[in-house]
Amino acid sequence: MSEQAKPLVGVVMGSSSDWDVMQHAVAVLKQFGVPYEAQVVSAHRMPDEMFAYAESARERGLRAIIAGAGGAAHLPGMIAAKTIVPVLGVPVPSRYLRGEDSLLSIVQMPKGVPVSTFAIGEAGAANAALTAVAMLASTDEAMAARLLEFRGQQTAAAKAMTLPA
Amino acid sequence: MSEQAKPLVGVVMGSSSDWDVMQHAVAVLKQFGVPYEAQVVSAHRMPDEMFAYAESARERGLRAIIAGAGGAAHLPGMIAAKTIVPVLGVPVPSRYLRGEDSLLSIVQMPKGVPVSTFAIGEAGAANAALTAVAMLASTDEAMAARLLEFRGQQTAAAKAMTLPA
Amino acid sequence: MSEQAKPLVGVVMGSSSDWDVMQHAVAVLKQFGVPYEAQVVSAHRMPDEMFAYAESARERGLRAIIAGAGGAAHLPGMIAAKTIVPVLGVPVPSRYLRGEDSLLSIVQMPKGVPVSTFAIGEAGAANAALTAVAMLASTDEAMAARLLEFRGQQTAAAKAMTLPA
Amino acid sequence: MSEQAKPLVGVVMGSSSDWDVMQHAVAVLKQFGVPYEAQVVSAHRMPDEMFAYAESARERGLRAIIAGAGGAAHLPGMIAAKTIVPVLGVPVPSRYLRGEDSLLSIVQMPKGVPVSTFAIGEAGAANAALTAVAMLASTDEAMAARLLEFRGQQTAAAKAMTLPA
Amino acid sequence: MSEQAKPLVGVVMGSSSDWDVMQHAVAVLKQFGVPYEAQVVSAHRMPDEMFAYAESARERGLRAIIAGAGGAAHLPGMIAAKTIVPVLGVPVPSRYLRGEDSLLSIVQMPKGVPVSTFAIGEAGAANAALTAVAMLASTDEAMAARLLEFRGQQTAAAKAMTLPA
Amino acid sequence: MSEQAKPLVGVVMGSSSDWDVMQHAVAVLKQFGVPYEAQVVSAHRMPDEMFAYAESARERGLRAIIAGAGGAAHLPGMIAAKTIVPVLGVPVPSRYLRGEDSLLSIVQMPKGVPVSTFAIGEAGAANAALTAVAMLASTDEAMAARLLEFRGQQTAAAKAMTLPA
Amino acid sequence: MSEQAKPLVGVVMGSSSDWDVMQHAVAVLKQFGVPYEAQVVSAHRMPDEMFAYAESARERGLRAIIAGAGGAAHLPGMIAAKTIVPVLGVPVPSRYLRGEDSLLSIVQMPKGVPVSTFAIGEAGAANAALTAVAMLASTDEAMAARLLEFRGQQTAAAKAMTLPA
Amino acid sequence: MSEQAKPLVGVVMGSSSDWDVMQHAVAVLKQFGVPYEAQVVSAHRMPDEMFAYAESARERGLRAIIAGAGGAAHLPGMIAAKTIVPVLGVPVPSRYLRGEDSLLSIVQMPKGVPVSTFAIGEAGAANAALTAVAMLASTDEAMAARLLEFRGQQTAAAKAMTLPA
Repeated sequence: MSEQAKPLVGVVMGSSSDWDVMQHAVAVLKQFGVPYEAQVVSAHRMPDEMFAYAESARERGLRAIIAGAGGAAHLPGMIAAKTIVPVLGVPVPSRYLRGEDSLLSIVQMPKGVPVSTFAIGEAGAANAALTAVAMLASTDEAMAARLLEFRGQQTAAAKAMTLPA
Repeated sequence: MSEQAKPLVGVVMGSSSDWDVMQHAVAVLKQFGVPYEAQVVSAHRMPDEMFAYAESARERGLRAIIAGAGGAAHLPGMIAAKTIVPVLGVPVPSRYLRGEDSLLSIVQMPKGVPVSTFAIGEAGAANAALTAVAMLASTDEAMAARLLEFRGQQTAAAKAMTLPA
Repeated sequence: MSEQAKPLVGVVMGSSSDWDVMQHAVAVLKQFGVPYEAQVVSAHRMPDEMFAYAESARERGLRAIIAGAGGAAHLPGMIAAKTIVPVLGVPVPSRYLRGEDSLLSIVQMPKGVPVSTFAIGEAGAANAALTAVAMLASTDEAMAARLLEFRGQQTAAAKAMTLPA
Repeated sequence: MSEQAKPLVGVVMGSSSDWDVMQHAVAVLKQFGVPYEAQVVSAHRMPDEMFAYAESARERGLRAIIAGAGGAAHLPGMIAAKTIVPVLGVPVPSRYLRGEDSLLSIVQMPKGVPVSTFAIGEAGAANAALTAVAMLASTDEAMAARLLEFRGQQTAAAKAMTLPA
Repeated sequence: MSEQAKPLVGVVMGSSSDWDVMQHAVAVLKQFGVPYEAQVVSAHRMPDEMFAYAESARERGLRAIIAGAGGAAHLPGMIAAKTIVPVLGVPVPSRYLRGEDSLLSIVQMPKGVPVSTFAIGEAGAANAALTAVAMLASTDEAMAARLLEFRGQQTAAAKAMTLPA
Repeated sequence: MSEQAKPLVGVVMGSSSDWDVMQHAVAVLKQFGVPYEAQVVSAHRMPDEMFAYAESARERGLRAIIAGAGGAAHLPGMIAAKTIVPVLGVPVPSRYLRGEDSLLSIVQMPKGVPVSTFAIGEAGAANAALTAVAMLASTDEAMAARLLEFRGQQTAAAKAMTLPA
Repeated sequence: MSEQAKPLVGVVMGSSSDWDVMQHAVAVLKQFGVPYEAQVVSAHRMPDEMFAYAESARERGLRAIIAGAGGAAHLPGMIAAKTIVPVLGVPVPSRYLRGEDSLLSIVQMPKGVPVSTFAIGEAGAANAALTAVAMLASTDEAMAARLLEFRGQQTAAAKAMTLPA
Repeated sequence: MSEQAKPLVGVVMGSSSDWDVMQHAVAVLKQFGVPYEAQVVSAHRMPDEMFAYAESARERGLRAIIAGAGGAAHLPGMIAAKTIVPVLGVPVPSRYLRGEDSLLSIVQMPKGVPVSTFAIGEAGAANAALTAVAMLASTDEAMAARLLEFRGQQTAAAKAMTLPA
């Protein structure tokens, strides 16, 4: 699954079952017109492909990698170990521990190999993508304008919220 | 505390008592020669100054804001609410809950207003700065080269580690 | 949504989706005949409106502000940062962490800017309103009488509870 | 331990060992010139005295009761069960669970009997007292002025904080 | 709800909504033919009745009191504060924190006022009753025989369990 | 370590390193003149001796067994599996998880095999012994009188507590 | 339930209700053609049978024992106390604490008596069996080949995963 | 650091700072005369070397790999992704979260790639080594004899423990 333009953001996840959560990242990238690619890259079942993906990320022009995983979530951190492209980690909720394990496995990285971590689940996936947009916006005025507009609409929508009488 | 060049990264914290942790972010920025500014901006005691800081961040040329706070840590999220400059949040360890409260207060942001979150304490502060460096490196080849060199040295240092006989 | 008399208590929440929980606060205020106002004020999506709300609260005659929010719940603490009107915080249950994040984000405020915090969910919303009533009752004998009557009825209802044979 | 004027705020704690934490509440009350009383009232070892204390609180003119306890902390909730005077609960850190048990024992009150809960430890004790001050300030302009001045000084002190060069 | 003989065990709970859990204690008492009484006694809504219940427990011949409560569960500990009759506490699962708050509120009693605590929910209710039976069995050979027989049947049932082929 | 009279209470612990905590149980038994025995019985390193201990407990006249253990604390539950003598479990604080693992390993027993569980650490050890005393007191008026006297002294000591001026 | 060949792996669980989880271990053993036996062995309700099972395991030729249990899960650790055959522990999810209690009760074994612990629930059960397979594979080339083939297929399946367009 | 014979067990850790914990694994291997190798292999700073280590483990004759790591502990799981040699994971205590993050990052592996996990800290390191010994013992009678002797001595030492009079 990828759009036609050369992708600027890679979206990877450990399993197709993570799509329910990670589609919220893709939806944001689409909304902002950010060329992206999205695929399953499993740290534990496809370790060599994962390393290859991370190793080639920079030369392929990726400006950020959004990586979602659950449980003992090693995907974001291991990709970060193999590239200097910023990695944005999304804790996917796990069945029994609801993503607490995913969150700690992603956020508690040791000094030297950073992963930007976001909220558990859909909100985190969307916010990882918004962060990728913001990174691009720092050197792309049109993208910045779109992000500012998005923020303005978001504020307007919140201000328009009413409560039952 | 600020260097001479126009700062590209802002480092803010809720109190001077957070310096023990946040100095690790500043040390990384210095090491990479990133112009920065560092100051106390308290969300709860200086809310207007905090908003003013966030509002002016983009026009002042900041490319990232590293915000550290502990306990009910609102600083990173509230700055993020007022700017599209990427905010990198550092959970400062709290006295009784060791930063679990700080971590959740920073990472669990709602959809639409992202904060990139890092590990509790020193490692998180350093990694937030390394992420700022990586962001800059995405459009600055010299910075990228420095980051790659840093990574190489880090790998070399790990490989040189020996254990007691 | 507001009653005709000049409101004494403000009820705010981060999103209309918080209404399921926060309506329990409004129901108590209605039951006690406390003039109130209720509206959505999002800390992260409407930060300026939030500050304006807090700044004007005292002069508008509010005696208490009940603020509900979930996840990285910054609304109660940030309102408290901008007013000396007592803020009563209600942790709204979050999807994956069931309100543990909301609770810690609200209750762990630093010294100097207090938020009175209540139980996660409906019970907390109702109790925040009962606390607002109790505050008013401290200088309003009629309100105190109503509160004592409520307590008496509550006791009577508990005493009347029977168990299956 | 009590000041000469008729006390407006009662400060109670389960043991004299809680004084290290609870003195921060007393210090705030002294700073604001609020007449107060402070004493040990143990829910588990002095249950009858606790009930008598709570029952007489309103007629004795108390406008708020600050109650600190640790572990299975029942003092704040049981006082609240016996009076409509607002109860402000302070979770005292426990030896092994660092106040997590104290916090949950105090904040998770059932619907109908509220306890305003504050942060674990010193910050919570001080903030409970500041909330008592704010309650008084709602009908006492001089107290309100003092509270606003305190807030202003607090902001000034934060703004004056500097970081090591 | 009580049987005809003079009750040896009291079963109390904070609300009729706790019956789903606490009926498992009553079922065990019935199974062993232990005279019992069961009723709602709310610590927070019926504090005086709770104290009266505890105060009269010993003279009324109760040999154990099984007390179930959820959330900020104060019932077992406060009854224990008013009687030397052994109190057996059952953490009733709470809506959002699943009984973790109930468990800590019951088990973390301070030195000097003990509450025997059991598992969260149905298993805990049944086991509290089995403990009451075991206490009676220590001076009642017939009850001991019944308890040994129960254990034997339980072992036989476990040994007879088969797994799907 | 045992006193001369035929012991009524057994105190067992998984290691001599648990003595720091468990001595608080023994001190209470001594204070009340309850004949007791105390020894190391490790579930994991002395499983056969543990079973033999539990199997002979009733015929040897033990009326209660106080069992302390830390970490994956199996001692209380496994003794309970082998005897109908009431088992009082004390969670000994563990090095890294401070007794949270000990507590859950002891309290979450399945339906059918109860363990009365007490607070983590010293308070729990003392309270387990006080519960043994209370059990004996239910059929021993002299013991009941001593327990009532203890409670009275405890109340008096709490009432005599003063706070710094 | 057992296959015809002399079993090399024993699968035990505390109750037939654990089968939903533990069948995933059996399915893996079947898939790899490992002779096994599976039965209910309850630590708390069948302690003598449990000890007999563990004591005879080695002489009966078992090379590994997979033990699943929930709540205060003592089965894996107590079997490990009675045999040197490697014990592989599976935390079965518990009703209220979702297996956190099961996990800590199994993994936090004291020095000297090890239990290999796996993830909560189905994944843990399957992985315990895969570990048994891997142990056998270390001296059985055919088994090693099958395990390598399984891994290869697993990688292929992950690589074949596609995401919705 | 390695002994002369061809190693059967590899001991790896993410940093030389993990040695305080991991030396307890090495001590056990030495005690049992198991040829071993021990070195620093960092998942995040030496990813390629880690993969090479794992890939060559089987052909080099390793029968088990003991891997210790702290925080977002990816070392055990990533080695397991690259070899069928059994991986024994040791959660090294982390500074702020005391190893809870390490434990969850190691134990919550997805179905298909197992890691045997042990207790946090020293006990876990020693037990991982004892598990490696037990694996070897399953096809090495002399090793089995040594392990049985160790167990016997351990039991004897526990039985010889005395308590202060």
